[in-house]
Amino acid sequence: MQEVKIYDTTLRDGTQAEDFSLSMEDKVRIALKLDDLGIHYIEGGWPGSNPKDVGFFQEIRNYELKNARIAAFGSTHHPSRLAESDENIRALIQAKTPVVTIFGKSWPVHVREALRVGLDRNLQIIKESLAFLRPQCMELFYDAEHFFDGFRDDPRYALATLESALEGGADCLILCDTNGGSLPAAIREGMQAVRERFPHAPLGIHVHNDGDLAVGNSLVAVEMGAVQVQGTINGVGERCGNANLCSIIPNLCLKMGIPCMSPENLAKLRPVSRFILELANVPSNRYQPFVGRSAFAHKGGVHISAVERNPLTYEHIDPALVGNRRRVLISDLSGRAAIKRKAEEFGLNLSKKDPVAMQVLEELKELEHQGFQFEAAEASFELLINKAMGRSKRYFELEGFRVIDHKTSEDAAPVAEATIQVKVGGQMEHTAALGHGPVNALDNALRKALEKFYPQLTRMELSDYKVRVLPGRDGTASKVRVLIESHDENDHWGTVGVSHDILEASWQALVDSINYKMYKDEKQNQK
Amino acid sequence: MQEVKIYDTTLRDGTQAEDFSLSMEDKVRIALKLDDLGIHYIEGGWPGSNPKDVGFFQEIRNYELKNARIAAFGSTHHPSRLAESDENIRALIQAKTPVVTIFGKSWPVHVREALRVGLDRNLQIIKESLAFLRPQCMELFYDAEHFFDGFRDDPRYALATLESALEGGADCLILCDTNGGSLPAAIREGMQAVRERFPHAPLGIHVHNDGDLAVGNSLVAVEMGAVQVQGTINGVGERCGNANLCSIIPNLCLKMGIPCMSPENLAKLRPVSRFILELANVPSNRYQPFVGRSAFAHKGGVHISAVERNPLTYEHIDPALVGNRRRVLISDLSGRAAIKRKAEEFGLNLSKKDPVAMQVLEELKELEHQGFQFEAAEASFELLINKAMGRSKRYFELEGFRVIDHKTSEDAAPVAEATIQVKVGGQMEHTAALGHGPVNALDNALRKALEKFYPQLTRMELSDYKVRVLPGRDGTASKVRVLIESHDENDHWGTVGVSHDILEASWQALVDSINYKMYKDEKQNQK
Repeated sequence: MQEVKIYDTTLRDGTQAEDFSLSMEDKVRIALKLDDLGIHYIEGGWPGSNPKDVGFFQEIRNYELKNARIAAFGSTHHPSRLAESDENIRALIQAKTPVVTIFGKSWPVHVREALRVGLDRNLQIIKESLAFLRPQCMELFYDAEHFFDGFRDDPRYALATLESALEGGADCLILCDTNGGSLPAAIREGMQAVRERFPHAPLGIHVHNDGDLAVGNSLVAVEMGAVQVQGTINGVGERCGNANLCSIIPNLCLKMGIPCMSPENLAKLRPVSRFILELANVPSNRYQPFVGRSAFAHKGGVHISAVERNPLTYEHIDPALVGNRRRVLISDLSGRAAIKRKAEEFGLNLSKKDPVAMQVLEELKELEHQGFQFEAAEASFELLINKAMGRSKRYFELEGFRVIDHKTSEDAAPVAEATIQVKVGGQMEHTAALGHGPVNALDNALRKALEKFYPQLTRMELSDYKVRVLPGRDGTASKVRVLIESHDENDHWGTVGVSHDILEASWQALVDSINYKMYKDEKQNQK
Repeated sequence: MQEVKIYDTTLRDGTQAEDFSLSMEDKVRIALKLDDLGIHYIEGGWPGSNPKDVGFFQEIRNYELKNARIAAFGSTHHPSRLAESDENIRALIQAKTPVVTIFGKSWPVHVREALRVGLDRNLQIIKESLAFLRPQCMELFYDAEHFFDGFRDDPRYALATLESALEGGADCLILCDTNGGSLPAAIREGMQAVRERFPHAPLGIHVHNDGDLAVGNSLVAVEMGAVQVQGTINGVGERCGNANLCSIIPNLCLKMGIPCMSPENLAKLRPVSRFILELANVPSNRYQPFVGRSAFAHKGGVHISAVERNPLTYEHIDPALVGNRRRVLISDLSGRAAIKRKAEEFGLNLSKKDPVAMQVLEELKELEHQGFQFEAAEASFELLINKAMGRSKRYFELEGFRVIDHKTSEDAAPVAEATIQVKVGGQMEHTAALGHGPVNALDNALRKALEKFYPQLTRMELSDYKVRVLPGRDGTASKVRVLIESHDENDHWGTVGVSHDILEASWQALVDSINYKMYKDEKQNQK
């Protein structure tokens, strides 16, 4: 079958989802992950409509990507202007991306009601917008918004808009099911008609999930010859979301014989899926196909031994192919091998038969049960392995802390104060500090106590602090997971803490963060 | 097209989902809801494998159902026994259901490895199991487990098992994609072959969602002539779940012209979906197609006025058809008209020219700038409008609180204690309470102070508590947004608070939650 390229729009269309938002820094980190995953195109944003996106395009130019091309997204020019004087179009050029994607109207009702122009004028707008941009970028894509609804309503006109896009110089025509309600038969019919009319035009597909059919509809389009599939990681997007690339990519690679991603990269699918959820502070869907926590979870004992004898009779694919794992008993060999592999990543030598691997596995199981997660907190995990290997060093010892938050009237902001007692090298240190809130007060008091012993801590800063309330119905008594990201002049690292008490959870993550800084500096000095 | 019957297996296959379980009483309540919804068949359980299910079948006989027939599920008889002496088969008869559904093996590898018998013996087992049950029930269905995998492996044998089922007296042959990994093309091919071989046999479909294709695969089967679709409400089920009836039913009714449910019942779809989630204490997926909270949520102001002019240009169906509603996201309310509309939703009368609308808009802008978001906190927003209208009532006044979190050694869990002073109707109340963490301690102390004045607060519970650190690079001094969801026996409501201090933010949301409860009760009493 044909070659298929993956076009990710998590950073643009994905952020249209309710309750899913990303900072500019998050977007850069995600783009780098997607590049590492082997995604072909990364749509970074809509510079003409969103100032945050302008910053992203500036920043991402500082990185050399291995696989992906960055795309900037925008609309056809405003009906009352020329392409060259349209701000939206100019913003696209200023984004200086190798790829530009322009969307235009395919459905007469939208031409009349949204653009408020005649049907012919819209054709002209499409053609001129693309023609103006054509010399400015390496690749130029055309998103035919509402194509399938437009095609149902007025097939001739919908096809005419595509013709204008080709005349304007589009390298690929992407047919969109913007309202997300088309049945597979409608996708098939639309693709068929376009293929017949423009047999040499490369086609793409962009669908939404309002009918719960987005993955299947994308695959139908590929069957019908689409060479580009647009979607988002975890299917985030407006309303019910976009087509889920975490499902489409493995279906293409493992079932349809279309190797749009290398096996090595495919095995990163679950980690990348989790990384983005963590960064956006969005709960994961445990039942998510391929990458969800329950996707290969087996109940019953008989079933389990059968799975181990002949996995493919009970599993539609080998979970390792997408970086997931069977969940039965964790005490299997693949677990220990994985720990060994992880330890190697950290530069720690660990034999597979080493009882330390077993111990780490046990601790990991127990900690995950408590609600810890290490995907975005590898520094905590490295410290865990290190401790199991008997190599951890105590840089300080806590004697106790007390945090007081005091609000004196309805309109007064509360005052947060922390006192802390730590022992460093046999010497007791007792400090007090105020803060913007109790966690900050505790952080300040701890630094005050330690910095005179470890002056390198002044060069370490917290770059991010995240709190997740863990599933459960305990209201304000729920467990929380705190993720802290820290950096110094050389490195970034993440740490984690879990407790019913947010201060305790923050404390755990803070302590790991400081310990990791010290440990890392020593490790580097030894080299 | 053909008539299609819906067969719900939420109570049986659905409960195979990780973290989804139902008591016997829950199962009865759900069965009655499903009956009221107009579901044709309700699979109640597997009496031969689960004692809880035996109780369900006894209990449900006490009710007269309006629409549905109850089905009992079980396997073909044990290879070493006769049908009449098999306990599993006897349990099915004792369940006294009008419908019995028997599953059998279609895939040679399972016949050999799971049943451990020869291929011919399996054919005999299928036929004899069904033949024995035939006179005992009104309708007899045959679930061909792993049919599509078996068909791919050995099409002749897979078809032979169906022939045995027909010879045994099956009224419908349900083809199962048990491992959930089949592509739509495989479903089409399998259905085609079965239809050609048994042109008069009624066919059904039962698929799992491991490939993220369950809804589409079910629709393909209907296109190919299936007259029965099996699935679960919200798609719950083992691993990635079963086919989602909340998506299949509206697709059939509203898009494929197959009226498997009356319009009146279809409008109950969202309430039934929510009811089951609540009963099972499972968080809802806001992005769920058709019935999710975000399924018809619109951002952007221009978009919103366009939707109101001509909804079907931006919505694939009218949300009311499935009992859902359009949500104008408050974060993007772009004008006074929108505020007025929102106020109407809350039953508050506000003229568009009312200066109150202007004031609310100003406050809203200022609060959003501070980091507030009202999408998931409509109760806080309603209180805001109410206050601007000069109608808010003070139920209590805060004099002050103090929260202390004290950790006394490295391994000790911290102790959280809160003291609070409030004035209620001129009377000062001073309370203290411990808690699982400082927020919980504060919550406990506040309730202790108020419950003696407002006993209705004992019927209010917090159902969810969420913390989001707002974008920014202030580490532990970041602002946090707290969302609290509360409920009583009648309603659910969400409130919000924002501060650098997590306790202050939690306090704001808690206070709103309590005020809303009191205000709402008064509003209802006035009716």
